[in-house]
Amino acid sequence: MEEKNAISNNEYAASIITIRDASVRIGPFVHKTPVLTSDTLNSLAGRKLYFKCECFQKGGAFKFRGACNAVFSLNDAQAAKGVVTHSSGNHAAALALAAKLRGIDAHIVIPKNAPKCKVENVVRYGGKVIWSESHMNSREDVANKVLQDTGSVLIHPYNDGRIISGQGTISLELLEQAPQIDTIVVPISGGGLISGVALAAKSINPSIRILAAEPKGADDAAKSKAAGGIIKLAEVKTIADGLRASLGDLTWPIIRDLVDDIIVVDDKEILEAMRLCYEILKISVEPSGAIGLAAVLSDGFRKNLAWNDCRNVAIVISGGNVDLGVLWDSLNNV
Amino acid sequence: MEEKNAISNNEYAASIITIRDASVRIGPFVHKTPVLTSDTLNSLAGRKLYFKCECFQKGGAFKFRGACNAVFSLNDAQAAKGVVTHSSGNHAAALALAAKLRGIDAHIVIPKNAPKCKVENVVRYGGKVIWSESHMNSREDVANKVLQDTGSVLIHPYNDGRIISGQGTISLELLEQAPQIDTIVVPISGGGLISGVALAAKSINPSIRILAAEPKGADDAAKSKAAGGIIKLAEVKTIADGLRASLGDLTWPIIRDLVDDIIVVDDKEILEAMRLCYEILKISVEPSGAIGLAAVLSDGFRKNLAWNDCRNVAIVISGGNVDLGVLWDSLNNV
Repeated sequence: MEEKNAISNNEYAASIITIRDASVRIGPFVHKTPVLTSDTLNSLAGRKLYFKCECFQKGGAFKFRGACNAVFSLNDAQAAKGVVTHSSGNHAAALALAAKLRGIDAHIVIPKNAPKCKVENVVRYGGKVIWSESHMNSREDVANKVLQDTGSVLIHPYNDGRIISGQGTISLELLEQAPQIDTIVVPISGGGLISGVALAAKSINPSIRILAAEPKGADDAAKSKAAGGIIKLAEVKTIADGLRASLGDLTWPIIRDLVDDIIVVDDKEILEAMRLCYEILKISVEPSGAIGLAAVLSDGFRKNLAWNDCRNVAIVISGGNVDLGVLWDSLNNV
Repeated sequence: MEEKNAISNNEYAASIITIRDASVRIGPFVHKTPVLTSDTLNSLAGRKLYFKCECFQKGGAFKFRGACNAVFSLNDAQAAKGVVTHSSGNHAAALALAAKLRGIDAHIVIPKNAPKCKVENVVRYGGKVIWSESHMNSREDVANKVLQDTGSVLIHPYNDGRIISGQGTISLELLEQAPQIDTIVVPISGGGLISGVALAAKSINPSIRILAAEPKGADDAAKSKAAGGIIKLAEVKTIADGLRASLGDLTWPIIRDLVDDIIVVDDKEILEAMRLCYEILKISVEPSGAIGLAAVLSDGFRKNLAWNDCRNVAIVISGGNVDLGVLWDSLNNV
């Protein structure tokens, strides 16, 4: 009860109210994604696992929830000028699809090192692709240029209350589908997904644990939590192409207050989790999407007595857009 | 109504009653598999498609439904001696798992050319593996030897009323999950799956069309339908390792009477459908499991005016046990 009040007293960029609003707004457009279970993986983990499969979301990732909420929140005058964003891929495709559904333009700035299948998704949904260099400065510069040229609205991939609210709708579905869960493990990058999931879940049930899963080569969130403030890394290096961003000033306060711990795993653990997703769950999962399973199977989590009573653990499989070469590596080189 | 009476007047090896009994019997053990949809694939097909994903069934294929029904139909004295079968893989793993759940032995005769991942499933579930040559005579000879040695009960992969009834439970779930469907496309091999699906679906709604999907290199069912009697092929050759069996004397009458047509596709079409399942649906599907999508996208189906009014088409994705090399081929060589 205390925690619940703590949530509602804070001035975050989103709340259970904006998340419920988002749920109504995007309801006609999103897939209610299934929750899969596997006795084999339960045995491996020593716990009951519930996989919330956002790889089956439109566009192949959870990103469509937030993008759809943002696009359909615009008034007609704003919408008429279109939207713009920079993204390594999944938010880009999601925004293109949401814009297409509303019948407006989406200008998408994509770094040159984005996975091919993610770029194909953007093109499939009619997004207008503009290339940038891979580092964040170039991405932002190019996006700003497009903003000036078109007068369109910037939809940031995660540092935006509309985005956070959209992603939070995952928890509304999940707690309805598997009310017994006591823990949710969520990939962390810029923090849009986990902020929304944490806000909704803890508003509904304050005792639910929210654990972040982060790649070792891009562990800015773990370092930020330890330092008590946003830390940015000079360089990031991980196979998880969706988890290379830094926390935003809107996501950070929510993560600081509501994320119980951050589990850091290396790329080898991520690849092994991808292999299990493919072989046991029969789902196509990108590296970022498999990281929650990697975290739950890691020594860091299993040997931490603090998490012994996490018995019914939901894992958000964030997306399934993976070039086959990466999957091939995961099955052959681990 | 006429068709409904036709079904109940015939003496098939299963009926809507045995299928409903099976549903109660296996209910505590099986996964209720989700139905996935994709706007992208709907556009490609020019119809609404509903994918009934048995790749998410325990053991990775629909086979667990029938095997579970058979094993839990045994009385205690029968069960005590264990069960035996010969199978290219999915029925084998399913029987091993069902036997494990009942706490009895499963002796599994496996042909030497079975996919590795399917053999691994059998071992994972504690089945006792006995190898045979790949042709059906050797499989049956070895199985008979085990029967004599152990006194165990033979559970045939498809030519068995208990198996047909178990597989039929798919239709009960499907018609509840997507009551708007007017057509169900089902892979055909020995006929256990399609017999059960057809019996249940047409008993509930006689106007539903049941279409079989069969590989060109193992098109004995298409030839049998054309000839009006069971035809066995001297040789079969298809990538769909689960679709190489011949019709049985118990499945044939149901297929003869209740299957509206058989769509034959080649291996290239199957590989292309696997690619779409992987890239668009984000599911891992074996060649046999992808054949329904291949059929719906084939010219043979699309250009046949008789199927113009199939607007809401369910496709049974029969299984997801595929060695990655096969998937790799499907994504690279098509």
